[in-house]
Amino acid sequence: MNTGKLYLVGLGPGDAGNLTPAAAAAIADSDELVGYHYYIEQVAGEAAGKVSHAMELGQELERAALAVDIAYSGKTVAVVSSGDAGIYGMAGPVFRVLTDRQWNGHNPAVETVPGVSALQSAAALLGSPLMQDFCAISLSNLLTPWEQIRRRLEAAAAGDFVTVLYNPRSRRRVSQLQEARDIYLAHRSSDTPVGIVRHAFRPEQAVSLAVLGGLDGERLGVDMFTTVVIGNSNTYVHNGRMVTPRGYEAKG
Amino acid sequence: MNTGKLYLVGLGPGDAGNLTPAAAAAIADSDELVGYHYYIEQVAGEAAGKVSHAMELGQELERAALAVDIAYSGKTVAVVSSGDAGIYGMAGPVFRVLTDRQWNGHNPAVETVPGVSALQSAAALLGSPLMQDFCAISLSNLLTPWEQIRRRLEAAAAGDFVTVLYNPRSRRRVSQLQEARDIYLAHRSSDTPVGIVRHAFRPEQAVSLAVLGGLDGERLGVDMFTTVVIGNSNTYVHNGRMVTPRGYEAKG
Repeated sequence: MNTGKLYLVGLGPGDAGNLTPAAAAAIADSDELVGYHYYIEQVAGEAAGKVSHAMELGQELERAALAVDIAYSGKTVAVVSSGDAGIYGMAGPVFRVLTDRQWNGHNPAVETVPGVSALQSAAALLGSPLMQDFCAISLSNLLTPWEQIRRRLEAAAAGDFVTVLYNPRSRRRVSQLQEARDIYLAHRSSDTPVGIVRHAFRPEQAVSLAVLGGLDGERLGVDMFTTVVIGNSNTYVHNGRMVTPRGYEAKG
Repeated sequence: MNTGKLYLVGLGPGDAGNLTPAAAAAIADSDELVGYHYYIEQVAGEAAGKVSHAMELGQELERAALAVDIAYSGKTVAVVSSGDAGIYGMAGPVFRVLTDRQWNGHNPAVETVPGVSALQSAAALLGSPLMQDFCAISLSNLLTPWEQIRRRLEAAAAGDFVTVLYNPRSRRRVSQLQEARDIYLAHRSSDTPVGIVRHAFRPEQAVSLAVLGGLDGERLGVDMFTTVVIGNSNTYVHNGRMVTPRGYEAKG
């Protein structure tokens, strides 16, 4: 019996320079592609001649189920995500579906191909903010209760973690970022550096710096294409770069 | 006046498939390379014909100072790190030296090229552990006081973060991992899944699963080439894969 294969492919931020050879090879090896249409378009070159299932945002479980169906039919399929499929990406829904179908762990084969994640793209453009312990927190309460997110923000603020906020703000969700700011202000100085990166490594890229006390999502244009990085108590700014010292070293 | 350029290049886990085209291009564009000798050897092909400054571990500030000197002299230099140079990597020492020299922010130019980090390589091989909020904590107390690391472990354990431990254990540092385990056991069940990945994407690669109560660094062979991933309260194992549900979904 021929066994299928499912690749979980992280495309990185979207430019060709940050697409790994392993990701390109996985797409080339696939019969079919499944993903949000915007990501499918990003790899139009690599996807030429393949069956592409371009879907809308918010259909993650449907996309995962379709891909698993294709793999069980004996074909090779790539599920494409921006950034890293393993970080808040399509790996979650796919493993959810595989669990529900009592997948035996090897047939179809499942392989995750890492990609440059949003937190890395943001850090690279900001300077060196991630030189000390850090955390990633998604402010989207679509799948997680706000109380749980709030509890994590409190813990990270108290533990002096550099914090990367995913999904910081959308048209409908505007209060969460302001609440997060207030939680951090209870633990860190109002002049703590905050980095704001929108559309990293894309033509529309915009990078700016703010301070925690001035973190106003509306004024700073924070949206779903934005990653926000809050420095720890030692993070400083030197000529436009956000720098977190590694430890004992004095603040710059 | 000709201005130099300094690239901070993340090589990823070390295999060719996970070296980004942008990283390869930065190395190709450089006159000289600076890095730990093991990483310089990893890119021997790309580095052919260039002046290579291969240095020993523990000389991070010396490496950074040498690279900054080369860039100030007007040449193009690449500082190479494994994983991502921006995550506990060479970006820190380089920005430290740049700050000390009152770098003006553009001359020499400094560009960070992200790479696939250890936390991503580990997650890709384990399943989908990073589908919920997570943090990275280094257990090395060489540059950070243990009390501060301990405080972060407490906060992350209490906040139910999936936790990626960097530098979990060395020949001389054996107690930290056991102390971390005990901190997490105060907040999570002893059967919480733990993933252990050694030499990800290299010929010596070894991936195993344990439970929090059985996390014994000696027995499990945890060393400086190992990344340890502790699940959150919802993480489960399905046929050898470590899966963290995205949120409201029930545990598998």
